[in-house]
Amino acid sequence: MEFTAKQIAQFIQGSIEGDENVTINTFAKIEEGVPGAISFLSNPKYTHYIYETKSSVVLVDETLILDKPVEATIIRVANARDCVAKLLQMYDAAMRPKKNGIDSLAFISSKAQIGKDVYIGAFACIGDGAVIGDGCQIYPNTVIGDNVKLGNDCIMYPNVTVYMGCKLGNRVTIHSGSVIGADGFGFAPNGKDGYDKIPQIGIVTIEDDVEIGANTCVDRSTMGSTVIRRGVKLDNLIQIGHNVEVGENTVMSAQVGIAGSTKVGQWCMFGGQVGITGHIEIGDKVFLGAKSGVIGNLKSNQALIGTPPMSKLSYFKSQALIQKLPEIYKELADLKKEVAELKKQK
Amino acid sequence: MEFTAKQIAQFIQGSIEGDENVTINTFAKIEEGVPGAISFLSNPKYTHYIYETKSSVVLVDETLILDKPVEATIIRVANARDCVAKLLQMYDAAMRPKKNGIDSLAFISSKAQIGKDVYIGAFACIGDGAVIGDGCQIYPNTVIGDNVKLGNDCIMYPNVTVYMGCKLGNRVTIHSGSVIGADGFGFAPNGKDGYDKIPQIGIVTIEDDVEIGANTCVDRSTMGSTVIRRGVKLDNLIQIGHNVEVGENTVMSAQVGIAGSTKVGQWCMFGGQVGITGHIEIGDKVFLGAKSGVIGNLKSNQALIGTPPMSKLSYFKSQALIQKLPEIYKELADLKKEVAELKKQK
Amino acid sequence: MEFTAKQIAQFIQGSIEGDENVTINTFAKIEEGVPGAISFLSNPKYTHYIYETKSSVVLVDETLILDKPVEATIIRVANARDCVAKLLQMYDAAMRPKKNGIDSLAFISSKAQIGKDVYIGAFACIGDGAVIGDGCQIYPNTVIGDNVKLGNDCIMYPNVTVYMGCKLGNRVTIHSGSVIGADGFGFAPNGKDGYDKIPQIGIVTIEDDVEIGANTCVDRSTMGSTVIRRGVKLDNLIQIGHNVEVGENTVMSAQVGIAGSTKVGQWCMFGGQVGITGHIEIGDKVFLGAKSGVIGNLKSNQALIGTPPMSKLSYFKSQALIQKLPEIYKELADLKKEVAELKKQK
Repeated sequence: MEFTAKQIAQFIQGSIEGDENVTINTFAKIEEGVPGAISFLSNPKYTHYIYETKSSVVLVDETLILDKPVEATIIRVANARDCVAKLLQMYDAAMRPKKNGIDSLAFISSKAQIGKDVYIGAFACIGDGAVIGDGCQIYPNTVIGDNVKLGNDCIMYPNVTVYMGCKLGNRVTIHSGSVIGADGFGFAPNGKDGYDKIPQIGIVTIEDDVEIGANTCVDRSTMGSTVIRRGVKLDNLIQIGHNVEVGENTVMSAQVGIAGSTKVGQWCMFGGQVGITGHIEIGDKVFLGAKSGVIGNLKSNQALIGTPPMSKLSYFKSQALIQKLPEIYKELADLKKEVAELKKQK
Repeated sequence: MEFTAKQIAQFIQGSIEGDENVTINTFAKIEEGVPGAISFLSNPKYTHYIYETKSSVVLVDETLILDKPVEATIIRVANARDCVAKLLQMYDAAMRPKKNGIDSLAFISSKAQIGKDVYIGAFACIGDGAVIGDGCQIYPNTVIGDNVKLGNDCIMYPNVTVYMGCKLGNRVTIHSGSVIGADGFGFAPNGKDGYDKIPQIGIVTIEDDVEIGANTCVDRSTMGSTVIRRGVKLDNLIQIGHNVEVGENTVMSAQVGIAGSTKVGQWCMFGGQVGITGHIEIGDKVFLGAKSGVIGNLKSNQALIGTPPMSKLSYFKSQALIQKLPEIYKELADLKKEVAELKKQK
Repeated sequence: MEFTAKQIAQFIQGSIEGDENVTINTFAKIEEGVPGAISFLSNPKYTHYIYETKSSVVLVDETLILDKPVEATIIRVANARDCVAKLLQMYDAAMRPKKNGIDSLAFISSKAQIGKDVYIGAFACIGDGAVIGDGCQIYPNTVIGDNVKLGNDCIMYPNVTVYMGCKLGNRVTIHSGSVIGADGFGFAPNGKDGYDKIPQIGIVTIEDDVEIGANTCVDRSTMGSTVIRRGVKLDNLIQIGHNVEVGENTVMSAQVGIAGSTKVGQWCMFGGQVGITGHIEIGDKVFLGAKSGVIGNLKSNQALIGTPPMSKLSYFKSQALIQKLPEIYKELADLKKEVAELKKQK
């Protein structure tokens, strides 16, 4: 896809300065500009880059004052940041066109209900009693189990698995390799030679506007439902144990693990590789730094890091002192000698 | 599925107190009861919940003495806990009926041997020379490689991959996305421009009654076999490196990683995100707290946590003192000044 | 497969001592030898094992001097280590024959270009505009998205997903369950009721001779490309965030996570479960011990471990002292009392 500066300016209703026939075919950060790219400038701190960028076109706020000539073609708009978001969405839609139709190589149970304007790719499987809402896109090789319910406009990328009975809301996106509704990890010693499996008869409920990354696991509950509330965003390779509830708009980075029956509040943010034990409660707006380990309840409105989690200030002070421990230990030994000497001199 | 209290009482041979026609369609914990649910009461600590639960039916031990009226219908049985397990299994079997037959959309090599009463779903692949035991259930889109051997009554959920040559015992359950027998991670610098791959010609052997969660990886060995012994339970997103041996009935929580050639004993329990280095030995009945990091052999019969692993008592003491390090450091500095002062005064 | 000592000696041009008709059918380490196995001896430290090994054949350097009789058949060659690598490759090729031909159950878009000598297994999907180089092997149930480009001789094991537009070089191997090019994790608060998705319009570029383990995720970039340079080896369950660049011949163990926009140099080696924050630079030849957490730039040519990473010596000293903290704390308290006493006595 290639556009002229003029075409873009028309689309976003901006005014051009410079060569309006220059063509662009990609996006780039202003500091990493290449010929053929469009960049944007919004943060005044980066203004100096506009004089040296190699991008062909730069989108700027109409109020920007330039005090040197600029090689790139300039397009002025009311709000450069918003316009670039609009262009990105347009580009994304062009690159990833909404697929349509049901591939003749898909398997769809005769007992499934399929909505309007649905895409179901080759080798996708839709089980008995499954309900697929309008506008859903089910990519190839994805398996939607028996009695699963998908709302409208869900996107299931290739090789996703949703186990029987799980309920997904509207506009839920799940990336490849993720597994929704596998059995929770429940076994009881049988007192003889091993473990008995505790049946996991619950489901997973995912509310509207949730996005789940690749190779993430959300386990079905023992009874009732594991719940992922509206607006939650989970990155890749995350583990959500059985009976967990994740509150609205909470965001977790890759490789986080939440053990069974824990309740996480709203608007939390967890860094990568955080681990949270089972059967506890995390409040709302709790921010946890990467690799934190949580073993007890946490109140709302805190930013913590470490194992156990503490304030950032305490954490970084303690971390620095851990490296000084050999020195501290030596000083303590020296001091003991000195005090012993003083006592002897008495 | 809906049952009356009377039907349930008959099934589990219990005696009813209260409305025998009330219907139930789900399970709930007694403290989270809802109308239409059945709960159970076994732990005397929870007895007070029976007077306020909203569950329609509560299963109790026949010896329970009630000192107030109860709204729910009561079913008395010899052992409420055992009965609920029986009911859960019945419910699970109804929700997840044993699938039967070979889907016409599956691919089965003409050189594969398929047992009796086997289910093979759409788009599942069974390779050349594979042997599938009686009663196995292979869900859609699962790939069983060439010369793989599955015992009887194995369950492979959708999108599982078992690489060529691996040997699985009886009643092995593997959840979606797990990968058994991918190449161990072995590369040797070639002294020039990169690495040469060390061929991984071994296999994975999984013994009877093993259950493996979703998106877990068990690598094939360089030579010989990576071995998962009888009764082992692995949660989701676990890494088992090449040539590892995991002893009988050992249980690992999600996101544990075991590096190559390490030998883990029997009846161990590892918390989430534990990491164990390669080429070491872990004894029997070793319990490791979440996030522990192990870099050396561990003897049997220990409960440890941390990096390196220590007793729980030491760990929590040390963790608490890490947070006090700034205070310790300041006290030490103050003390140094005082001692210097004392020496000057001499 | 079974060979006589004589056949093997001929194949690797070695000279035999002992029974040339003994047959072998597997490989074993010399210290774990079993009848029917071939072992090798290269490291002089292990020489003593040759007198007690149960392997039927041992491959040794021609210069080896034996001072006792040996039960196994000996084959002498110029370089035992190189010969065993050659034998392993031969065995691997026999066990894992190069598959050929396009299965009639594969789905290949009429707009895709397929090279010569390609294998495409059952239920594999090749999207519109995809280009598959000569000699590629695409195993069953793998999905190659629209406009993806694979160089020559790539191996995609079963259940791999490569998203639209990604570019892979020659001899790239990807194991089962890995996901290349899922959306980077980018969301911006919309100031109202949740988050807006930031379109992820970039791709993933993987250069020649890269091997990626099972269930690993490499996210597509927001703009431009996430880049995995020539010769990189990634183990299982690794997370590579959007816009990351991994330098040539860098090797990462299982469960490592690299957050977005971080640049990793060449010839680095990261242990298991390492976590690296976003937007930083790691130099060349940086070795990080398992579980390390990195939150700032790291210069080239360092071996570090811990959070934050420090030298191995500092790390192990500090770790040992952390366990001594209760003792240190007590000594400090005792010393305070003694000093107070001394002052009082003044």
